[in-house]
Amino acid sequence: MPVGGLVDAIRHHAIPQDKDWFAYTVHNHAAAEAVATSLVSRTGLPFESDDVRFAPGTFGALSAAMRTLVDDEDEVIFLSPPWFFYESMIAVLGARPVRVTLRAPRFGLDAEAVRRAISSRTRAIIVNSPHNPTGRVYDREELEALAVVLADESARHGRPIVLLSDESYNRILFDGRVFLSPAAIYPHTLVLYTYGKQLLAPGERVGYIAISPRIDDRTGLRDAIRFAQIVGSWQIPNATLQRAVVDLEGLSIDLAALERRRDRMAAALTSVGYELIVPDATFYMMVRSPIEDDRAFADLLARRDVFVGPGHLFEMPGFIRLSLTANDEMVTRALPVFAEVRKRCLGDRVS
Amino acid sequence: MPVGGLVDAIRHHAIPQDKDWFAYTVHNHAAAEAVATSLVSRTGLPFESDDVRFAPGTFGALSAAMRTLVDDEDEVIFLSPPWFFYESMIAVLGARPVRVTLRAPRFGLDAEAVRRAISSRTRAIIVNSPHNPTGRVYDREELEALAVVLADESARHGRPIVLLSDESYNRILFDGRVFLSPAAIYPHTLVLYTYGKQLLAPGERVGYIAISPRIDDRTGLRDAIRFAQIVGSWQIPNATLQRAVVDLEGLSIDLAALERRRDRMAAALTSVGYELIVPDATFYMMVRSPIEDDRAFADLLARRDVFVGPGHLFEMPGFIRLSLTANDEMVTRALPVFAEVRKRCLGDRVS
Repeated sequence: MPVGGLVDAIRHHAIPQDKDWFAYTVHNHAAAEAVATSLVSRTGLPFESDDVRFAPGTFGALSAAMRTLVDDEDEVIFLSPPWFFYESMIAVLGARPVRVTLRAPRFGLDAEAVRRAISSRTRAIIVNSPHNPTGRVYDREELEALAVVLADESARHGRPIVLLSDESYNRILFDGRVFLSPAAIYPHTLVLYTYGKQLLAPGERVGYIAISPRIDDRTGLRDAIRFAQIVGSWQIPNATLQRAVVDLEGLSIDLAALERRRDRMAAALTSVGYELIVPDATFYMMVRSPIEDDRAFADLLARRDVFVGPGHLFEMPGFIRLSLTANDEMVTRALPVFAEVRKRCLGDRVS
Repeated sequence: MPVGGLVDAIRHHAIPQDKDWFAYTVHNHAAAEAVATSLVSRTGLPFESDDVRFAPGTFGALSAAMRTLVDDEDEVIFLSPPWFFYESMIAVLGARPVRVTLRAPRFGLDAEAVRRAISSRTRAIIVNSPHNPTGRVYDREELEALAVVLADESARHGRPIVLLSDESYNRILFDGRVFLSPAAIYPHTLVLYTYGKQLLAPGERVGYIAISPRIDDRTGLRDAIRFAQIVGSWQIPNATLQRAVVDLEGLSIDLAALERRRDRMAAALTSVGYELIVPDATFYMMVRSPIEDDRAFADLLARRDVFVGPGHLFEMPGFIRLSLTANDEMVTRALPVFAEVRKRCLGDRVS
C-alpha cells in the first residue's frame, strides 16, 4: 500500500484555498522553494526556486530537457545498460542516440569510452546514478574523471556538453550511503528527478528539472525549459500535485525494509549457487541466469508464477532482474522456486 | 471557485482501494468505459472503451495524435485564426504546418480553401469546433463540405487525411445548441478532448483521444497512440485523475450563468457602439477594437485595470478578446470602462 502521508497530501492540497487553485499552474512557488531548500542541503550548491521546473516525472523532465538543448542531428550519449526509453526518446526528438557500452561485472562509468564517443555534434550525455538496473552508485572518482573529459571536450568543440543527471533513485540508497550528485562535480548539469520512486507511486506524475546554479546561461535556461515544456504539450504536473510537493518532499517508502529484503534475497540466492550484483541502491537486483538464455530462464520461473525481467530487455543478456519491491510473502514463496528451477536447469544440462 | 464535485472526486479517488492504486496507469478501464458510453450517446457512433486513450489535456492529446500520424516533412493543415500553439506544436514534431486563413466576419469553414492547401504530403488537418476564440460552432453543411474534400483528396493521394477534432469546448454551448462532432460526418477522425473547460480547471490535466470507430486501422491506432504517448514522455494523466473521470464526466460549470454573462456583455457593449461576434460557444467574445491597433486599445483598457487579449495574438488583428469567465463584479466594473475608453479614443481621433 502507498507511503503513509501520500494520500493525505493529495487530499489536503485538493481543497482550494483561492479561486485560482486549479488554474494553469506552471510553477508553484512554495513547492519550488521546498525543492530548492532540499537541493541546497543535499548538494551544497546554491539552488534557487526559479532553478526548479516541475515536470510530470523523469520521463517528462528528460524530454523537456533534451527538447531545450538539442537541434536536429545533434548527438546525445547514453550509457548501456540504459533505461529502457533513453534511445527512443532521443530519436523521437530528432537527435542521434550514441551508445557507450559499460563493461561487466562492475559497469563502471568509463570516462575514456565516453571521450571516444564524443564528436563536435555532442550536445548532452545522460548519466543515471543510482543506476537502474545494476543498482550501482557512481563514486567521486568516476564522476571526476567524467567531468574532466566533458570539460576538455566542451572546450575543444566550443560549447558545453550538458550532463543530464537522471537521479530518479537518489533517495533509494542502502548501507547508509550518501548520494553524490554529478551536479556537485560538473557545472553544466541538469538534475532530473521524480517523486515516483521515493513514494513508490509512479502513477502520480510529479518530479522536476533542477538547473545547476553553475551552468552556463542559467537564467536563459530557466525560460527555455519552460518554453520547451509548453510547446512539448504542457509537460507540467497537475496543480494539486505541485502544491503537494511541500509535503511529499519529506516522505519516503520504508528503506530499511527494502534493505532487509535485499539482504535476505541476496543471502538466500547466493547460498543455493546464484551469482548476483548486490545493489547499492534502487529497486532492483541483477542475478546471473544459470543458463545463457535469460529469456528462457525467466520463462521457466514464470511457469512457477515467479516473475522476473529477462536481462536482454535491459541490454544485460545473461542476467535476470529481480524487484526488491515485491512483498515479503512473495519473496518467501519465490525463494524455493529459484532454488528448484536452477537445480532443474543445470540438471537438465548435465544429463 | 471550482465546480462543485471536482474536489470531492479528486479526494475520493485518491483513497487507495488496492496496492496498485498509484502504480503506472496507462488505461483505467472503468473510466474509459464511462467515456465511451458518453461518446456513444453524444455522437451515435459505436465507440468502445479501447478507443479511448487518456491524455493530460488537449495539449497532450494533440501532441500524441500528431506524433502517431506524422513523419518528417509531412504536412498538417491548421486554420487561422488558430489556437495559439498549433503551429509550433506541428513544427516541434518535425512536420510542416500549413495555414489556411478563414475569412471575417463569419470565419466559416472554407472547404475549397482547404482543398487548395492539400498536397500529397498532407497527413492531417486540425479542426477546432467550437472555435476558440471566435465562439463559432461549425454546422452540418460546413462539415459535410469539408468531409467531401477530405475524402476526395484522400482517395487521390492514396492515404486518408486524418481530421484531428479539437473539441475542448464541446460542452460549453449556448442557446440550447447540440454539438455536432466532425467524427459523426468524416470517418477518419480522432476526437481530442479535455475536462479542463467543462470543469474550469485547466491545472488538473485530464482529457483523451477518442479513435473514431469508422477510422481505417482502428485497432492498429489504439496501439500506435499508446506507444506514441509513452515514448513522447508518458503523456498520460495521473492515476487519481483517470479514476476520477467516472465522476468528472457528469460535472460542469454553470452554463446558464455563462450565457447570461455573454448576453449582458453583448448588450451593454453593443449599446455603447461596439461591434462584436456573439459567440455560440466557448469562454470568449471577440469585439472589434474601435481603433485599428488592437494592442494599443488593449493597453488603454489595461491602464484602467480591465484586461483583454489583443486580437493580433490570436491572428485576429483589429479585435480584442473578452473572457466570459470573469466574475459578475468584474463585469460590472469593466462595462463603464469599455464605454469611456472607446469614447475617449474616438474623441481623440476626431479632435
